[in-house]
Amino acid sequence: MGKLRFEITTSLDGFIAGPDPDLEHPLGVGGRELHNWVFGLKAFRERHGESGGETGPDDDLIRESFDASGAIIMGRRMFSGGSGPWEDDPNADAWWGDDPPFRVPVFVLTHHPRETMAMQGGTTFAFVTEGIEAALEQARAAAGDKDVGISGGAEVIQQYLRAGLVDEMLIHVSPVLIGQGVRLFENHLEPGRVELECTQVLASPAVTHLRYRIAK
Amino acid sequence: MGKLRFEITTSLDGFIAGPDPDLEHPLGVGGRELHNWVFGLKAFRERHGESGGETGPDDDLIRESFDASGAIIMGRRMFSGGSGPWEDDPNADAWWGDDPPFRVPVFVLTHHPRETMAMQGGTTFAFVTEGIEAALEQARAAAGDKDVGISGGAEVIQQYLRAGLVDEMLIHVSPVLIGQGVRLFENHLEPGRVELECTQVLASPAVTHLRYRIAK
Repeated sequence: MGKLRFEITTSLDGFIAGPDPDLEHPLGVGGRELHNWVFGLKAFRERHGESGGETGPDDDLIRESFDASGAIIMGRRMFSGGSGPWEDDPNADAWWGDDPPFRVPVFVLTHHPRETMAMQGGTTFAFVTEGIEAALEQARAAAGDKDVGISGGAEVIQQYLRAGLVDEMLIHVSPVLIGQGVRLFENHLEPGRVELECTQVLASPAVTHLRYRIAK
Repeated sequence: MGKLRFEITTSLDGFIAGPDPDLEHPLGVGGRELHNWVFGLKAFRERHGESGGETGPDDDLIRESFDASGAIIMGRRMFSGGSGPWEDDPNADAWWGDDPPFRVPVFVLTHHPRETMAMQGGTTFAFVTEGIEAALEQARAAAGDKDVGISGGAEVIQQYLRAGLVDEMLIHVSPVLIGQGVRLFENHLEPGRVELECTQVLASPAVTHLRYRIAK
């Protein structure tokens, strides 16, 4: 059985999205720029159907992450692209186009049953209404020996952390303070401690990658 | 002129102190343990009048930091030891004993004028009532060519960040999530961005050090 892991980009001050999300800024003001480090990488471009791109340690790292994941879990808001007029529409389209970059089975946490959608390029979206443990069970079955990745958003990650189900997290720290927005770690724990083991640190000018194993 | 810098230990989820500080837990529940990485280091022990201790990259790093600082700025709560019955006493004693570990001039931000205190071992506590810029000016004069360090607490650091006066920050990330407490970065900015340059990453099993230069 693979690990349950998440990886996510944050600002140094701990935000995964900026304030005031709207149609023009689905990740909030300054949110998209957090991800500048990834857009030019070869592995990222390949996933998005584009050729070329930079190689090197950052690229190796995300390629390895992509390859390690046999299934993905995400929240419904992430499925439909965050804020917008579709936000409360349980039948909103996928934000990710006809050829999403995931290329594995994706399990979307929702309160609204919906038929599984088979997209181009190997991505399927299945909708899970029975909660995070059911989603994990289904994702593990689909992933086989590979890892299950939690794509987000923050609330979904926090739910899995609170439940003690996460094995590993990989945090890409962008060298910027944005001051406001959506925090990765927001009241995610009852008073208590989660002991971590830092298993990898990789620094490049554009980003610092911190990988932690969660002690059980 | 040296840099204005701060260094501080945070949990991975961004807390510099835990919740519910009291006499037994001046740094809040779980707050002291954030600093476990430093207590055994030779340079730290020397500063606190103790012999022995571990050497190595962590020790080198903090020794260099100690040596680089020619003056220190801190808030009044840090001077008098955080929470406690003395919290609102403008004439509270220094929490740091007769022989404080700073060994340079310390400038304490306060609303209450008070005579400068000369302690053993080279530490003086001067009290500045005219605000953060006045404290910086006095600290720079005392530091000469050396750096001025902001010791904390978080609110003092945030004030200097908001004012755009900080040149460098060194964050020691402890491998733990504590979920609640005092955040280092809490609404410290108006909407906007502070671009950073990561100038050093040093990882050890006990802590990850991230050093950033603030772009002006």
